[in-house]
Amino acid sequence: MSKDTTAEESPPDQSPRELRAAPASEADTPSSRVEKFGGDKALRLDSGTVLDPWQIAYETYGTLNEDRSNAILVCHALTGDQYVASPNPLTGKPGWWSLLVGPGKPVDTDRFFVICANVLGGCLGTTGPASTNPATGRRWGLDLPLVTIRDMVRAQAVLLDHLGIETLFSVVGGSMGGMQVLQWAVSYPERVFSAVPIAAAARHSSQNIAFHEVGRQAVMADPNWCGGRYFERGVRPSKGLAVARMAAHITYLSDPALHRKFGRNLQDREAITFGFDADFQIESYLRHQGMTFVDRFDPNSYLYVTRAMDYFDLAADFGGSLPRAFLHSPTRFCVMSFTSDWLFPTAESKAVVKALNAAAANVSFVEVESDRGHDAFLLDEPEMFRTVLGFLTGAAHARGIAPPAGGAA
Amino acid sequence: MSKDTTAEESPPDQSPRELRAAPASEADTPSSRVEKFGGDKALRLDSGTVLDPWQIAYETYGTLNEDRSNAILVCHALTGDQYVASPNPLTGKPGWWSLLVGPGKPVDTDRFFVICANVLGGCLGTTGPASTNPATGRRWGLDLPLVTIRDMVRAQAVLLDHLGIETLFSVVGGSMGGMQVLQWAVSYPERVFSAVPIAAAARHSSQNIAFHEVGRQAVMADPNWCGGRYFERGVRPSKGLAVARMAAHITYLSDPALHRKFGRNLQDREAITFGFDADFQIESYLRHQGMTFVDRFDPNSYLYVTRAMDYFDLAADFGGSLPRAFLHSPTRFCVMSFTSDWLFPTAESKAVVKALNAAAANVSFVEVESDRGHDAFLLDEPEMFRTVLGFLTGAAHARGIAPPAGGAA
Repeated sequence: MSKDTTAEESPPDQSPRELRAAPASEADTPSSRVEKFGGDKALRLDSGTVLDPWQIAYETYGTLNEDRSNAILVCHALTGDQYVASPNPLTGKPGWWSLLVGPGKPVDTDRFFVICANVLGGCLGTTGPASTNPATGRRWGLDLPLVTIRDMVRAQAVLLDHLGIETLFSVVGGSMGGMQVLQWAVSYPERVFSAVPIAAAARHSSQNIAFHEVGRQAVMADPNWCGGRYFERGVRPSKGLAVARMAAHITYLSDPALHRKFGRNLQDREAITFGFDADFQIESYLRHQGMTFVDRFDPNSYLYVTRAMDYFDLAADFGGSLPRAFLHSPTRFCVMSFTSDWLFPTAESKAVVKALNAAAANVSFVEVESDRGHDAFLLDEPEMFRTVLGFLTGAAHARGIAPPAGGAA
Repeated sequence: MSKDTTAEESPPDQSPRELRAAPASEADTPSSRVEKFGGDKALRLDSGTVLDPWQIAYETYGTLNEDRSNAILVCHALTGDQYVASPNPLTGKPGWWSLLVGPGKPVDTDRFFVICANVLGGCLGTTGPASTNPATGRRWGLDLPLVTIRDMVRAQAVLLDHLGIETLFSVVGGSMGGMQVLQWAVSYPERVFSAVPIAAAARHSSQNIAFHEVGRQAVMADPNWCGGRYFERGVRPSKGLAVARMAAHITYLSDPALHRKFGRNLQDREAITFGFDADFQIESYLRHQGMTFVDRFDPNSYLYVTRAMDYFDLAADFGGSLPRAFLHSPTRFCVMSFTSDWLFPTAESKAVVKALNAAAANVSFVEVESDRGHDAFLLDEPEMFRTVLGFLTGAAHARGIAPPAGGAA
């Protein structure tokens, strides 16, 4: 489904603000394309539970070629969604990676067929805690079984089967998206021609689990959370979720970037006010981040998806050996990190590269110089764009994918 | 007042747990010594408001010599208190810096007379938001004017006048305590013979303001906060304060220390439980930190003291020039930082050292190798102990303070 088709499906007089008033509907009947599965396509989760039925919401961009060889799966991060290169129906904002993905962009939708699906446990149309539990007619809430990164990837694989795509030309993603990329290469090595994990890690660190736990406790401490049953009560743990987002947001930035962007600058005032208003620009900025986030994200979904990241430990299934996870991998890897990223520091990416080298896999590695912290992967970072473009161009040549009309191979 | 005297003053049948049941009383009638001031000793605050009357709670250790030349003021950090080397009456735990301060310790109470006062805005006996406002008979709550680090130091100076101590042999403190040390040297240079700011900074950074703002928002988001009037309502924003403490606690540790101490170890279980219990040790640890903190600290006090740190910017009164703040300083400085401290990184201490050098002040600097993050200043760090001991011994010789009986000068 292209960006234009999505726009057509939205009633033309329905503004983003009006849609936002009823974001809950996006969980069951998303603005994007959605596929429903059950029966022999029931989803057996890592927890041992079976989801039947379940659904997955996704967007596509570009055209699948005759060989079905030009498909790229883009995996989104913690609070991302399927709208990688088209406007988010709740916020009206451009796709979250439209700098990287689109016509003529490094992930060129004139050349490649790009698929991006909302993750399992998400809240924009793929089965998650905000979805209706078909067995009860109520929201799943905390009755939904916990999901893992591997479960998210399993769900995506079923979708690709359904779309008739046997092999992905590439899987690309940053942060939690990068975790999915790595999981794809391990779970389905024969289906992944190339893989681009950016600002990611093969396991979630103790410090990162700690930050996630703070966020979850902030949500659960909000009395409007109601044990996850806020929908039925007609309330919403907005304050708790905003605090969670504020704490997380600090970890997405870097100390130097904060210093450069905000320093100790005051917000619309000449002097400190000796009070608890947002005297400093950084406070005002964080509060805004917290408030806007609650408009577009489900609090229970935040619990589920952070937990999936915490549980991620790629080596755990291989006796703790990361190289064994990648043994005999036919995939070409391009691993990327950012110098100022302290949430997923370069050392984590290097551990992946080291394991890939130990497994004699095909891997290139680029550490991008940037002072923007973890968030850099979502921003205008020319070196990242050049690296993705160069890597995909080379891989496409090896894969025999035709260059775009008028473009160079 | 010595450690023993404090113990005597507590009814012998009153356990720490029983005392904890009524921590509020500590705000007005602390277990430690307390002095009340008013009239010509009213406290004019940076905000322009005058506190009259006000009180300051403190502990002392050792004996003031005849010259009154051997007094050391220890300044405590954000959630510290006056019980630097004697048990905290609420928790029953040993003094928070008893590794550094005590008989035969680097800050040797056999040689020096050590004073430690609860900060203005605190909750253990010095006027703070949990204290009774004499004008209304109610707790101050948010009616208390905001206080600054300089206000804290002003209050300590009044106490020292009262104790007949004109010049401090040394002022020692870590983190916010180090901010007070620097403020002392700038506000009262002639009263400070030597100064030891540890793991501190001359101004609070944007990232640190951001973390504090998250903590305050967590407290204020708790409906039991009641706009600061929880005492009257018979409730307590414990969940919000616990979340604030959890977030802050992560910043006190380092990623390597967390990895070494907890890694991805599970808490009392063989496998993940696919739920939101504390599967990981780091989660269990953080929750414990949050829960125990609320037993001993006043939520409004947390707002006030974090705000005081946010407002700290030593150069601001000197046209933004830190060297000008220290011009003609007669004080000997020993600045210390820790390699893995990312809350008050070495760069902040180096900025202080650079300014002191530019002001031709007497300064030595030690960066202690430690992987324990900001918390290192409170822990068993032999290099820190050796540095403090060496510096104070040299300064005491210069000051002509007699060595302890049987000890070397």
